[in-house]
Amino acid sequence: MVVVMRSTATDGDIERVVDAVTAVGGECFVSKGRNQTIIGLVGDLTQFAELPLHAFPHVEDVIRVSRAFKLVSNDAQPRPSTVEVGRSRIGRDSVTIIAGPCAVETPEQTRLACEMARDGGATILRGGAYKPRTSPYAFQGLGESGLDILHDVARDIGLPFVTEVVTPADVETVARKADMLQVGTRNMQNFQLLKEVGLTGKPVLLKRGMTATIEEWVMAAEYIAHTGNLQIVLCERGVRTFEPMTRNTLDVSAVPVVQALTHLPVIIDPSHSGGRRDLVLPLIRSAIAVGADGVIVDVHPDPERALCDGPQALVHEDIPKLRETVARFAAAADRVVDFELGAGSSRSQGWGQGA
Amino acid sequence: MVVVMRSTATDGDIERVVDAVTAVGGECFVSKGRNQTIIGLVGDLTQFAELPLHAFPHVEDVIRVSRAFKLVSNDAQPRPSTVEVGRSRIGRDSVTIIAGPCAVETPEQTRLACEMARDGGATILRGGAYKPRTSPYAFQGLGESGLDILHDVARDIGLPFVTEVVTPADVETVARKADMLQVGTRNMQNFQLLKEVGLTGKPVLLKRGMTATIEEWVMAAEYIAHTGNLQIVLCERGVRTFEPMTRNTLDVSAVPVVQALTHLPVIIDPSHSGGRRDLVLPLIRSAIAVGADGVIVDVHPDPERALCDGPQALVHEDIPKLRETVARFAAAADRVVDFELGAGSSRSQGWGQGA
Amino acid sequence: MVVVMRSTATDGDIERVVDAVTAVGGECFVSKGRNQTIIGLVGDLTQFAELPLHAFPHVEDVIRVSRAFKLVSNDAQPRPSTVEVGRSRIGRDSVTIIAGPCAVETPEQTRLACEMARDGGATILRGGAYKPRTSPYAFQGLGESGLDILHDVARDIGLPFVTEVVTPADVETVARKADMLQVGTRNMQNFQLLKEVGLTGKPVLLKRGMTATIEEWVMAAEYIAHTGNLQIVLCERGVRTFEPMTRNTLDVSAVPVVQALTHLPVIIDPSHSGGRRDLVLPLIRSAIAVGADGVIVDVHPDPERALCDGPQALVHEDIPKLRETVARFAAAADRVVDFELGAGSSRSQGWGQGA
Amino acid sequence: MVVVMRSTATDGDIERVVDAVTAVGGECFVSKGRNQTIIGLVGDLTQFAELPLHAFPHVEDVIRVSRAFKLVSNDAQPRPSTVEVGRSRIGRDSVTIIAGPCAVETPEQTRLACEMARDGGATILRGGAYKPRTSPYAFQGLGESGLDILHDVARDIGLPFVTEVVTPADVETVARKADMLQVGTRNMQNFQLLKEVGLTGKPVLLKRGMTATIEEWVMAAEYIAHTGNLQIVLCERGVRTFEPMTRNTLDVSAVPVVQALTHLPVIIDPSHSGGRRDLVLPLIRSAIAVGADGVIVDVHPDPERALCDGPQALVHEDIPKLRETVARFAAAADRVVDFELGAGSSRSQGWGQGA
Repeated sequence: MVVVMRSTATDGDIERVVDAVTAVGGECFVSKGRNQTIIGLVGDLTQFAELPLHAFPHVEDVIRVSRAFKLVSNDAQPRPSTVEVGRSRIGRDSVTIIAGPCAVETPEQTRLACEMARDGGATILRGGAYKPRTSPYAFQGLGESGLDILHDVARDIGLPFVTEVVTPADVETVARKADMLQVGTRNMQNFQLLKEVGLTGKPVLLKRGMTATIEEWVMAAEYIAHTGNLQIVLCERGVRTFEPMTRNTLDVSAVPVVQALTHLPVIIDPSHSGGRRDLVLPLIRSAIAVGADGVIVDVHPDPERALCDGPQALVHEDIPKLRETVARFAAAADRVVDFELGAGSSRSQGWGQGA
Repeated sequence: MVVVMRSTATDGDIERVVDAVTAVGGECFVSKGRNQTIIGLVGDLTQFAELPLHAFPHVEDVIRVSRAFKLVSNDAQPRPSTVEVGRSRIGRDSVTIIAGPCAVETPEQTRLACEMARDGGATILRGGAYKPRTSPYAFQGLGESGLDILHDVARDIGLPFVTEVVTPADVETVARKADMLQVGTRNMQNFQLLKEVGLTGKPVLLKRGMTATIEEWVMAAEYIAHTGNLQIVLCERGVRTFEPMTRNTLDVSAVPVVQALTHLPVIIDPSHSGGRRDLVLPLIRSAIAVGADGVIVDVHPDPERALCDGPQALVHEDIPKLRETVARFAAAADRVVDFELGAGSSRSQGWGQGA
Repeated sequence: MVVVMRSTATDGDIERVVDAVTAVGGECFVSKGRNQTIIGLVGDLTQFAELPLHAFPHVEDVIRVSRAFKLVSNDAQPRPSTVEVGRSRIGRDSVTIIAGPCAVETPEQTRLACEMARDGGATILRGGAYKPRTSPYAFQGLGESGLDILHDVARDIGLPFVTEVVTPADVETVARKADMLQVGTRNMQNFQLLKEVGLTGKPVLLKRGMTATIEEWVMAAEYIAHTGNLQIVLCERGVRTFEPMTRNTLDVSAVPVVQALTHLPVIIDPSHSGGRRDLVLPLIRSAIAVGADGVIVDVHPDPERALCDGPQALVHEDIPKLRETVARFAAAADRVVDFELGAGSSRSQGWGQGA
Repeated sequence: MVVVMRSTATDGDIERVVDAVTAVGGECFVSKGRNQTIIGLVGDLTQFAELPLHAFPHVEDVIRVSRAFKLVSNDAQPRPSTVEVGRSRIGRDSVTIIAGPCAVETPEQTRLACEMARDGGATILRGGAYKPRTSPYAFQGLGESGLDILHDVARDIGLPFVTEVVTPADVETVARKADMLQVGTRNMQNFQLLKEVGLTGKPVLLKRGMTATIEEWVMAAEYIAHTGNLQIVLCERGVRTFEPMTRNTLDVSAVPVVQALTHLPVIIDPSHSGGRRDLVLPLIRSAIAVGADGVIVDVHPDPERALCDGPQALVHEDIPKLRETVARFAAAADRVVDFELGAGSSRSQGWGQGA
């Protein structure tokens, strides 16, 4: 950490900072300049984190120069992690497709959407039973009965599934049925929820907050890791910008940036970022090319009747293109697609029967 | 609502939209232009809200032109609301000061800070027992014992207090002791939390999300109102912008904009928006001048020892200026300060004894 | 400046930085930590500014800790500046109203608008002859003939005027007639324009770029100052945020922040920030309360016929309120209004006759 | 266009809008709802653009639903354009690499950098002679002598070059030597500059403003097109977001969005968007995969001595990877690289000799 003193700081003011740092076991290096004095703090960041140095007299700025996250850092574990979800996996060597309906509406629609997902190459299914909605008058999801529908469909198809949990009270119920728990963009800093999903020991898909910095996002993952659960996959889903032609702006740079900081897999969501069906395949190509470890995609058998986010869902005619596009760009990026590893075929059916 | 069709839309495509709208009880007015056809939808917004019109063929855009909120709208109740907290109140006629420590650290620090608050003109106390923090390694608040400290101090001083609740499981505990529940900026769209604080029937202080639009914020209030609880006060606390010299950018325009849309009181937080002690009094002046119904301010008896947000807290020497500044600008804005109504004196002591 | 080395940096890498800094006359203080080494650079910032330290091997970050601006800094001149425009002035002791039509449309409209401005308390007139417009198909202003209209009206009324110049080739023409040159938000980083308006020696009104940081804005002022012209007034006009209910978000905090960094006066534009007539007076109150040295306001005699920005202009019935509001909040802020100093009366008429 | 009336609007207020629209030759369709009346305006947008409908009494909102741009729209020309720069080209069928030094510093550095560019597959060279810099104390470019250096090097290598022009007065000089003129991010709305580069008839590379919306960017292209010059290439270079780990956030979605709106080619700048050398190749992969028509890349023979943006330049060891990466992902995207068309070999040498 670096403490920058104002030009008005006296030796006594500098001393005060040095004493406070020394008192908690840190060491200080003082660089006196003509206009400013800089104090370099050496030691463990957590020692200083609680010191209110900003409030000390004549302190101009306090700059953190080391990483605040530990367990998810690639300092702690240099080898990239692979997260296993049922017999599928998400990691640096493969590209994994997660797909399914945005919201579970009926058993029939869920089954059709999940079959589309499987045909498109998905080895993990997705579907929303609990939907966080801006308006209390909007469809809020089917809740536990939606969860049951998803569970039945996924078992029949023979693939694991991920679903969002929106409040701590539902964690136990969801964890009993789902193979992976999703924390959505609005809940990225719902710290109690992070702790409780962590404690289930299940794999967690953590979406980036809609205007979160990468550091805030990684710190949210650290909350999960702090419970002892390192089965975490990060998901970039677009950040809010001034551009109205897309729902959000997919931050593809976040993929290599996160991979250079942490050992966690990172996937992207081309459906919620663009919010437009015509952008889904281009953004998938872009994501795989930049190095994403997977994608999570909305599909719908009949988007004109969708209760949620219909305009962004892939439809039947897109399904062969989904499979082909992922395979082609994964090959260009020297990756294999998870379904090529057999996850979507007999092996996973075996898993389905066993579950 | 307005549906804009692409130039490629056929009469059949237009018909399809009209049929879907009519089927849910709406009425359509079709304006055919050279390049585009516009369909005006007339009826109740909730009828159309679930129609996935965006996903219909050759639909270019769907534009909502009426308000999505109802219960908190000044269409529903044209007269501004006054929210009562103990014997204090927040409303359009007065200016109310809420003050206290950002975090409850010790009984002594809490008592000193709350006495500073009272001396500065506060008629409602504030203090954080549960603190949502970006890092799992940062001080997370004292929890229930912090709540007890606050309760005792507030009773002794004879003023009501507001405190943040961060997760649904704590709502009952907090509601038993606090006079008003705060939902913080990170939880503005924690919908389950909104519902549960609403159901307590207690007054709620709802902070604006750090990058929320005014409509999203008002819709969050609508979630609370939907439980039957209209004792809601909105709090503008700065939005994230590209400016690094202030922690957030206080959006003073939000005050008159919200007052023109809803009947709810709206206050501002000069401490968390600027993040700098030297900005607190200027921002208070600005807020009262623009028409805010109150302010919520951090004070600390010893900011160099603060466990949270020390640099922004007002200190002892600021206290007389706080009282004087609020009084002066409230007068310029033709308002009285709540403490002038006696809320902070004998009357509220009476309340303190009775509580 | 502070250079943060990666944990992978060797002694040789550190040496390399130290040598480069020493070579340009700087001094280094090296703080070796367990995970990181921090190098504090002491000396004149301009020495280091061109060193590409970020590109040195194993450098993680380069953090500037001192101000990059000099001439406009209050380090260079602690006493706040007062900028004189004709016989009017803008400075820390008074509050100055600048008003007039957004665009000069006709002699009649300009005369009526400027009379409204004078009646509302303006001691400097404003009007646009050259309008930067997003669309090439929108009204681009009357150009030089608009300038002549403004000049004649201002001379008759007896007040100085400010007008925008949008390209270097027009600077000489505009400077011959106008009393103050405005650089608009889109041109804040049009560096050639900044230099040329600076070289005229005339007072300059520099608007903040629509997403500029305060530092970028102050650096733009430094470009003007660098030509030897310190007659600069900064104008905050709202920054772009995610909020659609206002055209921009007025950043009132920028006023005290800029006043703590520079000696330049700073005013605010309530018309272009809110973009709504109903917000103009509330934002004026807010600006004066926070400490602004003036306001610049659109007025229009007939906004339904305005060629530009009609919805935000004050109309006849607002004029007495404008004058009264400024006077009332200036008094609360312990300021006098420029018109109370006689700038808008006989004295300035004397100026008008002499011009 | 759609005009939304407030619930308070009378028949007279509605009539007033209809009359104003009819007076300029438009047609109105009125949809009266319970709470709101919507007026659909049919006709040419430019008819209504100057009507200040927002300022009419009881108008709540005015919503534009058709495109404000014409000449660059794919309504005007459905077939994608190919822009020729010397013997190279930028268009929908190929992928073109533009590369060279960020700034021209010395003849030697420029030559080495341009040779690196050619070896990396560039068929158009780039280099900055005029540099817009935030600080007046930073290196501002060599100006005309830099232009001469670039011209000589490009002629020797036998490739055309693009260079930035920052002010109208330099347009003629730059156009005499350069093969393509660049308008930088800070000048995207420098309308006089847009007109003057347009009038040269030379190809123009138009960078997106750092916080511009896609519509504002396309409207800036419309300014150039309006001069009769349609040789325009758009360049996405990252937008400002809250993420500090990258200099800007590359908006890859902008590529397919722009391609769906206009017939202009669109390329991306991986160097200035990320600001980090380690992100350049990943972002190139991402850009080509999403469908960009080319990339513009910084290279430097000795980044530790670069006077500008050293940390983001590719270095010698990256050059083979640049060529290989572009070829591989262009193939995956069913494109050829411009150099495969012979532009960088004998044919372009012929061009070099002839120039």
